[in-house]
Amino acid sequence: MHTPTVTFQPDARTVAVEAGQTLLDAVFAAGIPLNSVCGGRGICQRCRVCVQGGEIEIDAAGRLPGREILACLARVTGDVVVEVPEASRIEGEQILTGAERGPGAFIPISVEAAAGLPRVADLYVPSPLALPVPLELPPPTLHDCVSDLHRLTRELRRQRNIREVTVPMEVLRTLPQMVREAGWHVTALLGRADGGFNLIDLLPGAGAPRAYGVAVDVGTTTIVVHLVDLCRGTTLGATAALNRQIAYGDDVISRIIHAGEPGGLERLRTAALDTINLLIGGLARAHGVGRDEIVAAVCAGNTTMLHLLLGLPPAEIRREPYTPVVTAPLTCAAADVGLRIHRRGLAAAMPGVSSYVGGDITADVLAAGMDRTEELSMLIDAGTNGETVIGNRDFLACCACSAGPAFEGGGISWGMRAARGAIQRVEIAPDGTLTWATVGGARPRGLCGSGLVDLLAELLRAGIIDRAGRPRPGAPRVREGPDGLEVLVVPAPASAAGRDIVLTAADIENLLRAKAAVYAGASLLARRLGIEMQEIQRVYVAGGFGTYLDIRKAILLGLLPDLPPERVTFIGNGSVTGARMALLSYEVWRHAADVAQMMTYRELSTDAAFMEEYVSAMFLPHTDSARFPRACAELGTPQQ
Amino acid sequence: MHTPTVTFQPDARTVAVEAGQTLLDAVFAAGIPLNSVCGGRGICQRCRVCVQGGEIEIDAAGRLPGREILACLARVTGDVVVEVPEASRIEGEQILTGAERGPGAFIPISVEAAAGLPRVADLYVPSPLALPVPLELPPPTLHDCVSDLHRLTRELRRQRNIREVTVPMEVLRTLPQMVREAGWHVTALLGRADGGFNLIDLLPGAGAPRAYGVAVDVGTTTIVVHLVDLCRGTTLGATAALNRQIAYGDDVISRIIHAGEPGGLERLRTAALDTINLLIGGLARAHGVGRDEIVAAVCAGNTTMLHLLLGLPPAEIRREPYTPVVTAPLTCAAADVGLRIHRRGLAAAMPGVSSYVGGDITADVLAAGMDRTEELSMLIDAGTNGETVIGNRDFLACCACSAGPAFEGGGISWGMRAARGAIQRVEIAPDGTLTWATVGGARPRGLCGSGLVDLLAELLRAGIIDRAGRPRPGAPRVREGPDGLEVLVVPAPASAAGRDIVLTAADIENLLRAKAAVYAGASLLARRLGIEMQEIQRVYVAGGFGTYLDIRKAILLGLLPDLPPERVTFIGNGSVTGARMALLSYEVWRHAADVAQMMTYRELSTDAAFMEEYVSAMFLPHTDSARFPRACAELGTPQQ
Repeated sequence: MHTPTVTFQPDARTVAVEAGQTLLDAVFAAGIPLNSVCGGRGICQRCRVCVQGGEIEIDAAGRLPGREILACLARVTGDVVVEVPEASRIEGEQILTGAERGPGAFIPISVEAAAGLPRVADLYVPSPLALPVPLELPPPTLHDCVSDLHRLTRELRRQRNIREVTVPMEVLRTLPQMVREAGWHVTALLGRADGGFNLIDLLPGAGAPRAYGVAVDVGTTTIVVHLVDLCRGTTLGATAALNRQIAYGDDVISRIIHAGEPGGLERLRTAALDTINLLIGGLARAHGVGRDEIVAAVCAGNTTMLHLLLGLPPAEIRREPYTPVVTAPLTCAAADVGLRIHRRGLAAAMPGVSSYVGGDITADVLAAGMDRTEELSMLIDAGTNGETVIGNRDFLACCACSAGPAFEGGGISWGMRAARGAIQRVEIAPDGTLTWATVGGARPRGLCGSGLVDLLAELLRAGIIDRAGRPRPGAPRVREGPDGLEVLVVPAPASAAGRDIVLTAADIENLLRAKAAVYAGASLLARRLGIEMQEIQRVYVAGGFGTYLDIRKAILLGLLPDLPPERVTFIGNGSVTGARMALLSYEVWRHAADVAQMMTYRELSTDAAFMEEYVSAMFLPHTDSARFPRACAELGTPQQ
Repeated sequence: MHTPTVTFQPDARTVAVEAGQTLLDAVFAAGIPLNSVCGGRGICQRCRVCVQGGEIEIDAAGRLPGREILACLARVTGDVVVEVPEASRIEGEQILTGAERGPGAFIPISVEAAAGLPRVADLYVPSPLALPVPLELPPPTLHDCVSDLHRLTRELRRQRNIREVTVPMEVLRTLPQMVREAGWHVTALLGRADGGFNLIDLLPGAGAPRAYGVAVDVGTTTIVVHLVDLCRGTTLGATAALNRQIAYGDDVISRIIHAGEPGGLERLRTAALDTINLLIGGLARAHGVGRDEIVAAVCAGNTTMLHLLLGLPPAEIRREPYTPVVTAPLTCAAADVGLRIHRRGLAAAMPGVSSYVGGDITADVLAAGMDRTEELSMLIDAGTNGETVIGNRDFLACCACSAGPAFEGGGISWGMRAARGAIQRVEIAPDGTLTWATVGGARPRGLCGSGLVDLLAELLRAGIIDRAGRPRPGAPRVREGPDGLEVLVVPAPASAAGRDIVLTAADIENLLRAKAAVYAGASLLARRLGIEMQEIQRVYVAGGFGTYLDIRKAILLGLLPDLPPERVTFIGNGSVTGARMALLSYEVWRHAADVAQMMTYRELSTDAAFMEEYVSAMFLPHTDSARFPRACAELGTPQQ
């Protein structure tokens, strides 16, 4: 039987697929950076391609005006040649390094650290989770004929005071030949283990050592990977991609349900792994690093994401009483997880608190330094799950709620993550002129989280939408679209795709729900702790907004509490920052377990007041204007 | 191409073999207990079979009078049917449990402990290397919804004060379903690890726990396995078999040379593993124990044997300056070694001292308790290598020399190990009548080590051989055989094989060389330490002699120093006893590393005096009769 092939142009890349698979599956297999944010359900309409020839079966909903079709709704039945237009490609797996600083409240997030946040090296003794140790071994003589392993461990102890090294059988088997061929100049790659070290590998030569690690944020919507030089403590690069699991549902609940189907857990595990491995591969190639030189990986993510990545059944996470399989810090060999780094490299999962507050939040807390401060602080992570932590170095309480992927661009007609061409800033002049700035200054392709926050705030301020988030009929830029009222953001001629970029009433509704959930969680947690918002001395904001977040605008929308903006710090992706800190410091890694254990979890789903808080927050900035005096003052008297 | 098959009768077992393989290979593949002690070189003449039909190619040396041929010298060229006669079978993988006690100096060795040696349980707190821990876990509630793993580790801590448990990903993946299906009554199988425990497995039910371990002595000639109940501290059974590596040479040097050939190391590793796994399988079946219930294995053996078992290249062991890959205690998962017990069971290798003093000697020292006594002691292990240790709890010095397999029955025409039918006692009455006693009281099949010692001493005392070990022409029982003078031990009608059991001049020469090497090592080590033999307060003798050793006769031959017999204790297989002690006590296991480190190794091969000592010892009892006053008195004035 002939296996159908798909050839992508202009890449001239051909892959074999099973009959019945979609073009989107083929795209994944071929590694073509086709945009897609709905996970292959024909909703986001990003995966537009043109068939140049061959057999294909297309759902009615997958046929678009003109030559384009949706890759996710086209099934391969025979050999086919497909063109992937420039406008459908999601460029730049590379996240911005924040070199271009914006004015005012725009806070640049470099891959190294958010402005104002301390660097790992300044706080902790650098002690990466894995490290290369060059060693000159004295050759054996009749008077010193200890075993090769003893010779190695003796010098580790003598030269570096390193004790308790576990050596895998695989390395032992090659040890005698290796050390002799290397003339007794070797480099030991050591991984930290509880109370000691594992010998990950032994390499010939004792010259300039190289060892790299990856910090991974396994988000429900987006996966971010940073490649870190473990010897220098620097970050070489960062990339991000949509979590391929999104094909099986937007949120953790739908993923958990899918995991319960036959083969579902393995499909989800593979989807996350493929995404991560692709990102690692790309970064490694880009920076001239061999996969075997990557010897440690620290993964942070919510509890469900870490379960799925590790192949742990997540079913009980959504069944009362909501017990995960594991929240403790885990380490194992990379090969046991499937990460394509050195097969014996150290793979670590950040410790979490409960089924709904995971290792990503522990990482956030570490990144923000909440665990080290006396200030009463609040951390808000507005990911697909919205989590809030309140506390300081003496206590930490946390809660979680489902916010949806809107702030990462999910469920928004023209939403996208903060890649090249994403609109990240929007201003509307008093005369109604709308100006935008995109990532990389490219032609606009869509709106990332920070752009959505900006846009919504500007529309509100300009009176184009009302305080319930509804576009005002007759207001500038508001028009009737195919699905009701919509706001024109970028007209077709200016957009990369040559089509109007719009924000629909449904998009606004999704954004409103997300912000209401996040704020309701934060506000109810404070209430339950008996803390007034005004008492909070410092607010840290994390999330997938992009590289910038305009704090004032986020407050104007009621996403963040109405505190003086100087009290608010945007820490960007705190999850990957915390994972990177742990990667670079065994002290941080150990401390992470203490932080996770210290956090007490408050279950909001059983709190009757949550719905009340949520409904009150479904308004811009909030139904209770007394809670947002500054925002309301800026907006003027409520108009309804 | 047709694959030739060999069918064995009366077993009616058929195996496929590659053309050109020997019948002995086919025997191994079929698991038929055919006797063979020369490793397939046509020397021992034990592997006698009858071809009933089919194609076979037989070396001239493989054709025996009558219908029999040697399996090792017959190559399979097509399908063949072979009868394996009863007399060629080596019965009873089961070692004697020492239930039948002999009189006088015969010291029974039970599988539990040598008489006079303390039991592990009396000396150390019982703390097996792996143990089952039944647990009743409190089911989760909304007020106690910690992760499943936390719930497990919390109860291990609360109920048993067990901390630092490492859990493999495989077990985590099945954890949530298992604990729920088991109604939260579970049994954790824990293996000791440095500073903590590994969770080997988690089983449903918290009833009467079962967990077993094996202690393995990996001898150059013989492999011995004991099956131990880890919960009760008792030994269920013991078996032994010829190390299949013997096909690649008699001694460690020829094995090391073979390991250097392409594929040689893997062949040797597999040969040892197959032997061990067959023995474990047999024991497990016999005692109704599942392979997965065997959760720990401690292997002792000389350094080369442990290298080969673990697949570690042994080449440097025989190259100056004689450095092994490893002497440190090693632990890993059973699957990493290939032991067919629970795949995540703990596999441990006893620590050794140097290339020529291995973990078997450390085990001997532990079994004898030399490390705990103030008495100046000497330990002599007369295996295929002869090792001596002198010292006490304050110091331990050791040496090694190659003795050959004679005392294990190797290289002796009618030598065999102490299995059913082996002659283990011999007496010659003043009238020249020779009486014997066999293992299990069966018809004699051959002579085991203790029988050989007895026989040689009786022949010497009766004047049938002279002090140089030569049969005296004209003496009773001495006759001209096909290869020179020989002594008739059992006439054909009384023997199991229906053939005369004899001891040839060449056999005696081999025994003499072995005893000379062992004594020379012991004597030179004492000399180099400035110790007179008479100062030695206690001598421990270990080795593969069988289950009994007549100390007086061993002294008469000059195998052991001429000390009062009450100062000498035969500890039997100290290697497997020490391994079993470590299996049953983590304290012993940890202590083994200290003992190995404490032992200083003396290289005798570079000591010019060794040859002189060896040559002097090639006499019965010794050239220097002043060293053996009691023995010489018993024998009367030297006759030459």
